Amino acid sequence: MSTPRPIVTIDDPDDPRLADFRALIDADVRPDRRGIVIAEGVNVVDRLLRSPYRARAILGVPGKLAALAPTLTAAPDVAVYEVDKWLLSDVVGFRVTRGVLASADRPAPVSPASVVGGGGRFVVLEGLNDFENLGSLFRNAAAFGLNGVLLDRRCADPLYRRSVRVSMGHVFSMPFAVLDDPWPQSMSVFAEADVPVLAMTPRAAAGSVFEADVRASWAVLLGAEGPGLSEQALAAASEWRRIPMSDGVDSLNVATAGAVAFAALSVGRVFGEPNAG
Amino acid sequence: MSTPRPIVTIDDPDDPRLADFRALIDADVRPDRRGIVIAEGVNVVDRLLRSPYRARAILGVPGKLAALAPTLTAAPDVAVYEVDKWLLSDVVGFRVTRGVLASADRPAPVSPASVVGGGGRFVVLEGLNDFENLGSLFRNAAAFGLNGVLLDRRCADPLYRRSVRVSMGHVFSMPFAVLDDPWPQSMSVFAEADVPVLAMTPRAAAGSVFEADVRASWAVLLGAEGPGLSEQALAAASEWRRIPMSDGVDSLNVATAGAVAFAALSVGRVFGEPNAG
Repeated sequence: MSTPRPIVTIDDPDDPRLADFRALIDADVRPDRRGIVIAEGVNVVDRLLRSPYRARAILGVPGKLAALAPTLTAAPDVAVYEVDKWLLSDVVGFRVTRGVLASADRPAPVSPASVVGGGGRFVVLEGLNDFENLGSLFRNAAAFGLNGVLLDRRCADPLYRRSVRVSMGHVFSMPFAVLDDPWPQSMSVFAEADVPVLAMTPRAAAGSVFEADVRASWAVLLGAEGPGLSEQALAAASEWRRIPMSDGVDSLNVATAGAVAFAALSVGRVFGEPNAG
Repeated sequence: MSTPRPIVTIDDPDDPRLADFRALIDADVRPDRRGIVIAEGVNVVDRLLRSPYRARAILGVPGKLAALAPTLTAAPDVAVYEVDKWLLSDVVGFRVTRGVLASADRPAPVSPASVVGGGGRFVVLEGLNDFENLGSLFRNAAAFGLNGVLLDRRCADPLYRRSVRVSMGHVFSMPFAVLDDPWPQSMSVFAEADVPVLAMTPRAAAGSVFEADVRASWAVLLGAEGPGLSEQALAAASEWRRIPMSDGVDSLNVATAGAVAFAALSVGRVFGEPNAG
């Protein structure tokens, strides 16, 4: 095992080595402008360092860097900067409660076919522009062992800081790709891979997701809370499925609906054995 | 149908009739000090007005009050104050994006036995001190038609403003009660009502929640994210159940785990028919 880089202590807020982390509130609303992904907190940074993403730098207070020590040893090429909590918040531009951040290069986008081509279990999102719901969906997709997330062009960026955080860092290990316009025609990638698309909708014409056929491959199609799926997306789906719920209640949060659907389609199929732990 | 009170326009931020809504950030961290419950947004205020809660006053901008007009007609005793959006934010102490608030009296607490005594389907929460997770759990409990929520003394207040908002106002219609200390002995109310308590835990000794016996009555027991359930609570449960998930992934968000468990225990049992809509 290589020796990790020594940790560099910085006490000048204008130090140019802090550039990746400067004024995050302003800079990272459009991360595509900079191509830099930010991870926050020990667990998320740890997951970044164990992922295929190329980490650039880590910035944190001593206690949090100590908590990351085992992972840092395995990532010898990453610059590690130690600062006190005041300097950290000063540089970042808001109070950093999690005590450590990492920056990483944004990887090149991959094609939907490369994600979906081999079949498996997927979620497809239409118009999901809420960063936190998007992050939660990645977390839930990881929890149920999905093979990838597909997004239409109107979805938010899963690599935006808040999505990364809410995903608990699972965006770094869960394959994802953007389905280009024209949407929903671009969902044809699923038909080509023989993966049926199950649109989640409360409509009465939809059968219960708990009564769907047992299949090795499927894609759950979800729309944003409120508007739900467009007519075009519903028409392009292989079938419609609903979560059996009480009448008169708003639908579930979209990420929660995803979790229930993933569970329903996995029951007694994929996860036969208890988890360890 | 009675005529609703006329809407009163207020343009003085110091008007004493605005007392319920003043400086909410400071005042409502401990709503038990004031006994006033705050609802935010058209949908949540609407749900409050249709609930058994006694509304005190409504404060909003003209457009949002107009959206509530049908419900206001049915609630003629409630004072309605119209302000512009600047005054609204000025009084409340933060920028009110939802444009309308309502205040209501906090109802007298009810006993656990009065909620649980007749049997049914429940969720029991241990140490859940996150307002948003708590609100989400109420929303999910309502979605799956549960009969009540039981809280240990360390749980957050479901009637705190942020819980109310995240619950989408379902706290107003979902019965809940606090299980006193000594906890978890106070869970004996379930045994007395012949309601088995299913503790959700990732432990290998737990069977899948999807393989639990079909029952008309059950209570799902959930702990806070991170610590999970205490040994004492686990020992007091009737049985242990897990959600089948991938290894190496943090457990689901507690409210999401609740939704999956409620769905699993309801499949093909309670909700045989599709929803309308």
